[in-house]
Formats: sequence, C-alpha cells, structure tokens
Amino acid sequence: MSEAGKVRMVDITGKEEVYREATAVGAIKLRRETIEKIRGGEVPKGDVVSVAKTAAILAVKRTWEIIPLCHPIPITSVQVDVELLDEEAKVTVNVKTTARTGVEMEALTGVSVALLTIWDMVKALEKDERGQYPQTEIRSIRVIEKVKKKE
Amino acid sequence: MSEAGKVRMVDITGKEEVYREATAVGAIKLRRETIEKIRGGEVPKGDVVSVAKTAAILAVKRTWEIIPLCHPIPITSVQVDVELLDEEAKVTVNVKTTARTGVEMEALTGVSVALLTIWDMVKALEKDERGQYPQTEIRSIRVIEKVKKKE
Amino acid sequence: MSEAGKVRMVDITGKEEVYREATAVGAIKLRRETIEKIRGGEVPKGDVVSVAKTAAILAVKRTWEIIPLCHPIPITSVQVDVELLDEEAKVTVNVKTTARTGVEMEALTGVSVALLTIWDMVKALEKDERGQYPQTEIRSIRVIEKVKKKE
Amino acid sequence: MSEAGKVRMVDITGKEEVYREATAVGAIKLRRETIEKIRGGEVPKGDVVSVAKTAAILAVKRTWEIIPLCHPIPITSVQVDVELLDEEAKVTVNVKTTARTGVEMEALTGVSVALLTIWDMVKALEKDERGQYPQTEIRSIRVIEKVKKKE
Amino acid sequence: MSEAGKVRMVDITGKEEVYREATAVGAIKLRRETIEKIRGGEVPKGDVVSVAKTAAILAVKRTWEIIPLCHPIPITSVQVDVELLDEEAKVTVNVKTTARTGVEMEALTGVSVALLTIWDMVKALEKDERGQYPQTEIRSIRVIEKVKKKE
Amino acid sequence: MSEAGKVRMVDITGKEEVYREATAVGAIKLRRETIEKIRGGEVPKGDVVSVAKTAAILAVKRTWEIIPLCHPIPITSVQVDVELLDEEAKVTVNVKTTARTGVEMEALTGVSVALLTIWDMVKALEKDERGQYPQTEIRSIRVIEKVKKKE
Repeated sequence: MSEAGKVRMVDITGKEEVYREATAVGAIKLRRETIEKIRGGEVPKGDVVSVAKTAAILAVKRTWEIIPLCHPIPITSVQVDVELLDEEAKVTVNVKTTARTGVEMEALTGVSVALLTIWDMVKALEKDERGQYPQTEIRSIRVIEKVKKKE
Repeated sequence: MSEAGKVRMVDITGKEEVYREATAVGAIKLRRETIEKIRGGEVPKGDVVSVAKTAAILAVKRTWEIIPLCHPIPITSVQVDVELLDEEAKVTVNVKTTARTGVEMEALTGVSVALLTIWDMVKALEKDERGQYPQTEIRSIRVIEKVKKKE
Repeated sequence: MSEAGKVRMVDITGKEEVYREATAVGAIKLRRETIEKIRGGEVPKGDVVSVAKTAAILAVKRTWEIIPLCHPIPITSVQVDVELLDEEAKVTVNVKTTARTGVEMEALTGVSVALLTIWDMVKALEKDERGQYPQTEIRSIRVIEKVKKKE
Repeated sequence: MSEAGKVRMVDITGKEEVYREATAVGAIKLRRETIEKIRGGEVPKGDVVSVAKTAAILAVKRTWEIIPLCHPIPITSVQVDVELLDEEAKVTVNVKTTARTGVEMEALTGVSVALLTIWDMVKALEKDERGQYPQTEIRSIRVIEKVKKKE
Repeated sequence: MSEAGKVRMVDITGKEEVYREATAVGAIKLRRETIEKIRGGEVPKGDVVSVAKTAAILAVKRTWEIIPLCHPIPITSVQVDVELLDEEAKVTVNVKTTARTGVEMEALTGVSVALLTIWDMVKALEKDERGQYPQTEIRSIRVIEKVKKKE
Repeated sequence: MSEAGKVRMVDITGKEEVYREATAVGAIKLRRETIEKIRGGEVPKGDVVSVAKTAAILAVKRTWEIIPLCHPIPITSVQVDVELLDEEAKVTVNVKTTARTGVEMEALTGVSVALLTIWDMVKALEKDERGQYPQTEIRSIRVIEKVKKKE
C-alpha cells in the first residue's frame, strides 16, 4: 500500500551548506523578421529582452513553488543573457547560492520562463494567418555546467 | 522618451468572450534506464507521471503570474498526457477556456513545467559521476493547434 | 500506460455560469484559559479573530493555487465567522460566486486556514512545558450547505 | 490606541538556528465505496494519493504565505504518508529544518492541504443526490511530535 | 461578540458586470544624478523603466492576493507610463476591466509597485555614505480618474 | 547588443550574513470623519488597523516576489505600527533579519501595502458622490533608518 502514489522529497537536512552554481541554456526559433524587430525595438509589446530577463529572475526565485519537489533555496545571484542570432534567440541563465542542494532546476526554470516570455512578447509576429505557429519552437534546454565547492 | 523601456500589455477589453483551446507538446530526452525506471515505478522520488501532471495543471492556472504580459484567464479545462518512448518522455497539454484571448501560452507553460518536473524527479538517475547532465535535454516545445470558435 | 499516473481536471467548459454558494464549518479545541485570553484581547500575537478572518479570506481566493485540480473561480463574497465557545473556537465560512463549478472547496479551505491561523496565534498558550500540544486539535471540518441556482 | 488592532509577529532574530522537526496527523472520513475506488485506482480525477502528497509538499513550503504570522523557513525535508483505512484516509506529515523557529504549523498545513485535496479528488463520489456531503468530514488534526535539538 | 475582530469582504454577487477603468499616479523623488543615469541607461542594475513597468503589470494582476479584501478581477488592460522629470520619476497606471467592482486598488497597487521597483533599481545611487536615504521619497499616490460605464 | 535590455540582479554570494534592520514610514491622508470611524470601530469592512498590519506582514515576507531584483531573505521580525492622527494614518514598519543584503525594500513594501490596505478598507467613506477620491492620498514613504551590524 505504502508504495502506491509514492511522492518523496529528498531529505537534505544533513547536507552541508556549500557554494553551488548552475548554468543552463536554451533557444527559441523565431522568424528572421521577428528577430529584426526585437533588435530594432519595434515589437509592439515592448522591450522583449528586458521583460524576458525580469520574468526569468522572478521565476528562478520561485522555482520551489513551481516544481513540486524542489527545496526552497536562498538564491544569491541570477544572471540572464539573451543572445539574438539570425533565426533564434538563445537564453543563458546562471544561478548561484550557498545551500544544501544544487540549483540546476532553478537555472532550467529561468531559461524556460525567459523563452516562454519571448514567445509571448512576439506572438503577434509569429502567428500565421490562421492564428497558428508553424515555425515557432522552443528547443534544446540543457544544463551546461553545475558547480559545487567545499568552502 | 516614452519609447524607452516600452512594455505594453495588449488591451483585450473590447474583445469578445469566445471558446478558446490550445494544444502544445514537448519532450525530454532521458536515458533508456531512466525511462525503464519511470515505467516500473522505481524512481526514488516517486510517481514521475502524476507529479508532472499535477505541476503542469497548477502552472497552467498561474501562467499570468509567471509570464508578465499574459492576461488572467478563467481556465475551464487542462488535460496533460505523458507518453514514455524509448529515450524520451513526451508531454502534451490541452487547455480550454471561454475568454477574450487565447490560451497557447498556458498550454506551453504547462508543457514546460511538466518537462522540468520530470527532470527534477529523475535528477539522480540522469547525473553522471561528476554531477553533470551530458545527455538530458528538453527539446522541441511547440503549439500544435489553436482553436477559436464564435459561439 | 495511459492510466498510470492519471490526474484529470474536470472539464467544466460546457457548464453554465450560475449562482453558487457554499458554507463550511470547523472547530479547534483550545484550553479554557486560551479562549479567555482571546476574548480579553490578551493574546501576545494580537487580535486572533481578525487575523484568522483575514487569512481565511485570502486563502479562499487562492484555493485553486493550493488544491491542484480546483478551477480558478471569480469569488464575489467571503464571510467568515469565528465563535468562541468554552473550550473551542468555531469557524464558519460562506463563499458565493457566479461560476461554472461549485465553491465548497473554497469554503473548506477558508475554514482550514482560519483554524490553522488561530492555532498559530495561540501556540505559546497551548504548548506544554515540553513544547508539545497534548490538547490542541482541529476537529470536524464539514460542508453544511451547498447551493446552486439557475438564474 | 496602540493596542487596538494589535498584530505582532514574534521576533526570532536572536534565536539560534537548530535542528527542528514536527509531525502532524489528520483524517478524512469517506464512504467505504470511495476508499475502495481510491485503492483500486478507479477515481475519475486520478491518483488521489500522489496528488494529495504533491499538494501537501507544496503547501508546507508556502506555509508562511498562507498563515500570516509564520516566518519563512528553509524546509529541508517533507514526508507525507497517506493510509487508507476502512472508512477514512489518514494523513501524516513530517517536516524537518534547521531554523530559528519550529515547524509544527508547516506540518499542520501539510496535513490540512492533503486532506482538502483528497476531498476535492473524490467529490463526485461523496456527494449525495442533492449535491450535499452528509458524511464527508475532516477530523482530528493534531501535532503528534515536535523535536528541537541543540547541535 | 460578533463585532470583535470584524473583517468583512463586500458582497458583490448581485452587482452587474460593467466596464470599469481607473487611473492612478504617484512619484518618487530621486537625486538629479540618478535621473540622469536612468535617462542615459547607466544604472548598474539595468533598464529601470522596463523593469518597473513589468513589476507594475504583474502586481496589478495580483492585487487581490496582496490587499486582503479585494476581489479577484479579470484584468483586461494595464498601461504603465514612467515620466522622468528633473528630480523625480512620475508613474501613471491605467487599468481596465469588465467586472462587478472597480479597479482603483489595482491602479494604486501598480503605481506603488512601480515606484518601489524604481527605488530598488537605483538604491546604490541614492544611498549616502552611511547607507541611508536622506532624500529618496515616494510621494503623492492618488487616483486621478475612475470610470464606470453601463453597457 | 549585450547592453540592450540590461537587467542585472546584484550578486550577493560573497557577502557576509550579518544582522540587518530597516525602518520605513509613510502616511495616507484621509477625511476627518473616516479617521473617527476607524477609531470608533465603525468602518463597515471591519478592523482597519489589524487587517492593514496583517497585509503588511504578508507583503514584507513576499517582497522578493513583488520587486523583481530583490533577493529572497529569511525575515526574522516584522513590526507594524499604525498611528491615527487628525487627518491621516501614519504607518511605520520595522524589519529585521540576518542576511547577505539589507531589508529596506522589505520595510518600504510593508508600508506601501499597509497604506493601500487602509485605502481599500475605507474606500466607501472616502469616495465622493461621483465615485472619485478628491482628497485621499498616500504621501511621503521614506526609509528612516537602516542598520547593519557585524556580529
């Protein structure tokens, strides 16, 4: 019986508080014209890059509210970078803390929310005449580095 | 001056409340052994599929809190499907409402949070000996259909 | 496969928006001296009744964030009553709305949070010398009436 | 004047960060047939036990957002157990942390939200023909143990 | 007894859903050099205006979570304007909806959060050598217009 | 490119956890009759002072969710004082913590939310016959003291 519906948060009580860092990346494929408009500051909803960064920072801090088994972590740094390439926007999020568990889920959540926010900001430019998104695509969200240092 | 720092929510006040539906999909690449353990109910953190679905439903409802320029929408249905393939888990989220604007961001947010939750649940199985994730990857999140019906 | 990890929000899209009302009750057993101090306004943490009511109203509105499969509902009225008896405080919460689904979970959540808040406010008065709560108890939370009216 | 509307959060600034643990229990009375359906995995809304556990873990972490005078606490472990008896489901929540104040409110909030979630999952099975809940009842939520250890 | 600890949400169940609009304004006094740096895009924390607008829009939507007796309202438009004068930044927030109650608290909350965010963004430029803020001041937050139209 | 849309959270990872305290004040101008009714407990929405204090404490704890670039801070004390003068209510909020960064934004957020809550509680008494607020005004929110002590 006890195994049906098993949901178990990892017990990190005994772990040491050490320096932790994680970097995640991801991209959103956009139309060439959309990228141009982001670059030129011509997107009707406004400044895509700063809104995406703001949303990512807020989401990183709330990761434990969004991902059920994540522990609340006192984030000490979030850096978000948005790079505009020819046909995609690439997001990199770096998160730091001193805590009992790692922050890769925080970095991944930040990347995901930045990409979703970019999509939301340029919806009107990406939709086709039937209101569909044949080309828009969030792709390849990964952790590129996780660091854990004994103090 | 007024154009510096432009951030503009779309004014939907004059739009009609009509039936809206959106379906989004996405996938997470996982190790073959991880998929086996999810299937067999052997993941230490518990029932991956039901926790991911629960997280997705909660996130869909809070999309307007996470994506800055989304409007609050009275969601009337969220269906989440998780399919376990050989080397990836595929998530489909369908959202319905009767509202003044579409729900594709809600569906995309649901997919993203389900995939992040799956990653979090199987972290211990995906990490290599150095604590890195060389293979794990969230990939190809897209809107597959958006519906808008006049009543 | 599809039935493993089943989590399904009820689809209320097709339901009619009608008047809904629900009333729930519950009680917390407290020491006689604690009740006296609440009555006399002598609780160190302050006005137990008004803080409990405020917490309950806030919780009713956020029920859909707390209970995973609840739908977001535009609450139009919350009334909270706290009655101080000899050895217990009794909470009644009435919730009203015009919506596609009922509000009994909202009323029950309001009662639960009011009772938890009362406990929190009088913790210092209820604890024994070992820091335990041998007598304090939340008891009998029920829905006493649910109303649904065609307009 | 200063005593009217008194609301005072306890100042824990000077307290020591020590190991804290609390366990709370509670139960919900359900129809015998409902318990059978939970056991058999036949509840239309899905896996009652895992959704209730997930909701409880999320609520434990957000206790300080729900109970006004609780302090934010960096929870390091939450364990939720759901036991299905003949005519009731019993929930036990254990919470651990290293903090300046205890976690009994967190454990109690976890139990309350698990019980509310169970109710929500089986609403359709518990309602009578008039849409009322004559038998369903949340009962006896208590703290069974509180631990505080000097390191 | 019933009047002690009185907290009463207004019952708007019977009110008509009509068009509502509210505009609020407020200002923050800043050092002349700080204003210059905002204008020149030289603030180390980044784009003050777009972050303040994003924060205001998010806060407007969550007003009912922040102000206890506010009703949840389906906001359909939020427009935030930030004007940089010689020694102050002036914020105007306009909110629209179709609802059973007005949105002046939403507009006021938007203004307040935009001003707080501006302060936070330029903290380092406003502090004196002792870490104090002798000159910084949020001032004169008012509702300048409230509109209610029968449809 | 990298400077467009700049948004940068301060990296406090390397800072020391020390005792921090901040006190902020602010006021709301109200009609003389409104102040009398608050004093006499005659405001229809209930106990203005205790609801405002409760809202302020909740907001202080959630500052990092409301102000995008604030760090999550484990608040250990919040004291809110509301003083009723002839034509205004004055709010003072004191916040304490042991953390890597100061709590002045937390104190300012607490003051702002207390003042907004007071406004919301007395809306019906402050509105003129056209539903406008010609006199009501939030004014002069400032930090009066910030303390940082090496342990």
